[in-house]
Amino acid sequence: MEKLKERILREGKSLPGDILKVDSFLNHQIDVKTAEEIGNAFYHRFRDRPVTKILTIESGGIIFACETARAFGYLPVVYGKKGYAANMDEDTFAMGAHSYTRQSDYVVRISKEYLNREDHVLIIDDFLANGEAMTALIALAEQAGAVIEGCGAVVEKSYQPGRKRILELGYEVETLVRISSLENGRILFEETEE
Amino acid sequence: MEKLKERILREGKSLPGDILKVDSFLNHQIDVKTAEEIGNAFYHRFRDRPVTKILTIESGGIIFACETARAFGYLPVVYGKKGYAANMDEDTFAMGAHSYTRQSDYVVRISKEYLNREDHVLIIDDFLANGEAMTALIALAEQAGAVIEGCGAVVEKSYQPGRKRILELGYEVETLVRISSLENGRILFEETEE
Repeated sequence: MEKLKERILREGKSLPGDILKVDSFLNHQIDVKTAEEIGNAFYHRFRDRPVTKILTIESGGIIFACETARAFGYLPVVYGKKGYAANMDEDTFAMGAHSYTRQSDYVVRISKEYLNREDHVLIIDDFLANGEAMTALIALAEQAGAVIEGCGAVVEKSYQPGRKRILELGYEVETLVRISSLENGRILFEETEE
Repeated sequence: MEKLKERILREGKSLPGDILKVDSFLNHQIDVKTAEEIGNAFYHRFRDRPVTKILTIESGGIIFACETARAFGYLPVVYGKKGYAANMDEDTFAMGAHSYTRQSDYVVRISKEYLNREDHVLIIDDFLANGEAMTALIALAEQAGAVIEGCGAVVEKSYQPGRKRILELGYEVETLVRISSLENGRILFEETEE
């Protein structure tokens, strides 16, 4: 997604600690028009799949999952919840994961009411780096017996093991922008991507 | 919003502990079409205001803020973040709040880059009950010197003090559905609403 690359070069910041800051339009301030284009791009890549539901995780993935759902003709979106909430079902699928950004472990939960073996899910998230969130969502879908039609992330750090972990689990991954390095404050992209 | 009331009566559950569960379409599974209608409804109520930015809080408010932003012609959305994250600016506006649903205190942060005295904000969230999240967002906007054009929530528990707290701060509140009681497992609505 050439336009997204240009925007990341223009507004993104590569900070010490391997951090890519793209919060001016992706994950703190949101540019809804760009989010729409991202949803359309995921639709374009997965439109031949019989997707019935979009699965994501709070908070960063929600808007991109919703835009993808719209592009597919208004599919339902289900987002995994982190941590405890009194209004959460007790009967949930649950899986642990680690957040490098927040430096903490967490549990992702999805109510059994909203994920089952009838579902053909497309898993969408904002970032793919170590693959912690994505593999947790895969595990939840597998617990539910759902068919996983594919996984998509907006931005991938291709030098981290996320993609490899998902491929090893036997699922397809599509990412819209692949970053090959954030060293020395510079943002470099994979040259092989379209 | 009559359609939303009917949906809450059909799918919502009033559970012990004053909990309204509407996670089949609002805050765990999301019906994107309904979210669009909610965004349009907020636009309808605030369209005479010179809004330049939609402000919300993760995670439940994000989709409704984004749909409202779209209805206003693609305004930027900024969402307050809860807790620590390594990719968050250090230079933030911050405000404490209490979550009754999660039974814990938290800090809401917004980067100073994305909220300032030029902004005319409309604050949007999913629920208004005690008003903790909404008054925290108001405090953040006030810290930034932004003009608050109004506050909107999808579902209000009108027997709780949220509305009163916001009115006392001098701001307008619009909610799409007002629930007057969840006693004995029944969901009752305010009769005075449109």
